[in-house]
Amino acid sequence: MTTVGLINPGQMGASVGAAATHGGASVLWASEGRSDATRERAEKAGLSDAGSMDQLVEKSEIILSVCPPSEVAAVARGVVDLGFKGLYLEGNAIAPARTREINQMLTDAGAEMVDGGIIGGPAWHKESGTVLHVSGPSAHTIVNLFEGSPLHLNVVSGDIGAASALKMAFAAYTKGSTALLSAILALAESEGVREHLQVQWGEKFSADTARRVSANTAKAWRFVGEMEEIAATFEGADLPGGFHQAAADVFSRQAGFKDQPTPDLESVLGAMLKRD
Amino acid sequence: MTTVGLINPGQMGASVGAAATHGGASVLWASEGRSDATRERAEKAGLSDAGSMDQLVEKSEIILSVCPPSEVAAVARGVVDLGFKGLYLEGNAIAPARTREINQMLTDAGAEMVDGGIIGGPAWHKESGTVLHVSGPSAHTIVNLFEGSPLHLNVVSGDIGAASALKMAFAAYTKGSTALLSAILALAESEGVREHLQVQWGEKFSADTARRVSANTAKAWRFVGEMEEIAATFEGADLPGGFHQAAADVFSRQAGFKDQPTPDLESVLGAMLKRD
Repeated sequence: MTTVGLINPGQMGASVGAAATHGGASVLWASEGRSDATRERAEKAGLSDAGSMDQLVEKSEIILSVCPPSEVAAVARGVVDLGFKGLYLEGNAIAPARTREINQMLTDAGAEMVDGGIIGGPAWHKESGTVLHVSGPSAHTIVNLFEGSPLHLNVVSGDIGAASALKMAFAAYTKGSTALLSAILALAESEGVREHLQVQWGEKFSADTARRVSANTAKAWRFVGEMEEIAATFEGADLPGGFHQAAADVFSRQAGFKDQPTPDLESVLGAMLKRD
Repeated sequence: MTTVGLINPGQMGASVGAAATHGGASVLWASEGRSDATRERAEKAGLSDAGSMDQLVEKSEIILSVCPPSEVAAVARGVVDLGFKGLYLEGNAIAPARTREINQMLTDAGAEMVDGGIIGGPAWHKESGTVLHVSGPSAHTIVNLFEGSPLHLNVVSGDIGAASALKMAFAAYTKGSTALLSAILALAESEGVREHLQVQWGEKFSADTARRVSANTAKAWRFVGEMEEIAATFEGADLPGGFHQAAADVFSRQAGFKDQPTPDLESVLGAMLKRD
């Protein structure tokens, strides 16, 4: 039985940890310094508490990192500093160049890395359709780990960075177009032409867009870092980063809706235009 | 019978001129210095040749300006310099702040302006659904001019700048999202993950997107200026201009496809990645 360490049991991470238990692994998490909400999620997901991070690192053959983009480097550095020599899944929404840096750090320390990118929501059921895209020489080990679990696996290539690039390219449209539509509605509101724009858009597109913009706001705060990673990904390929620098700006204006019930469109536009 | 001067009979302009003849006006254009293709379009549209621009300005009670964003100021300046004191429709895709500058220039010279923004393709038939949005104190005069024509009219408000803002907000999504998708496909191509992205997108969305990106390239060269106007519009409202600065960059990379037959997606991405 493979022992796996999960960092961290957030909404997505907990479902990935649970998926690994379905695949037959024993999955650890570390409760030290974590909230009651995280403990509850970890227990529901069937994870075992290793207590501290050094215990988790010592006992795990494989470590899964699922965390916000801003924490990626610190998490990997912490694992390396605790002497980890196993297989590390870097499963986060970061630019391929940063993924390759993390890979270098882990490799230099005698560990091995698989690049991963998750597309979709928390993977509690096969029907969620959530895909963990993986790349790198040891990608198959991660595929085996999740065999028979609700998480779909796809090997992108043998190259570290490819899974990250795919994740960035996919999120570039889903989240980027939501940011663009948010900005356009704020512009139309600011110029006093929003009703005319909505007539020109038609009822269905206008209603769908308003719902989409409002529903996104609770998570907008944590998309800021991801938009910055996407901008860096475009610039790394000599393509313009401006779309997603603008998207980061849009989402940062919506950060006040963090974990709030879905606001109406007027409140979202008011916040974006700094009217609140 | 109202005499109207049209500047210029391009693809869109010719259809607007023809629409004004349907509304019962006599519509002039000026052949001096124009190409044979323009003459052919003007004749098909039922326009009368005033010969020179000074003849056109002298004889016209109303002037319609339909031209690329980069020519807007020179066209208005030229009309003012020829002593025009009538009603001027500024019907182009420019930022509201620039529209207000043009209005100031015309008003100072004793003329009057209506702000206009055209949404849709050339308006040869009512079913095209093309709308000329107008704003300003004399918007109703323009509405009357096109009564019974294939062009749909909508009065946005009494404010100069409102019709421009609406046009900018609408094009911000149609053209902005096409630019975004072009950039994403180029990114995926550059990172060697385009096939995986297309699988993740699904067959229909991938095929629709490829068609849309390729079909846009023949007109991309003239969207560069419009994207810059949209970026300025966002910035004028204290919103991020980065989406459309990036879109201008994307379209400028596709400028080589000007008036070419629709290329395949691989050629478009090659040009964007400067591989050709």
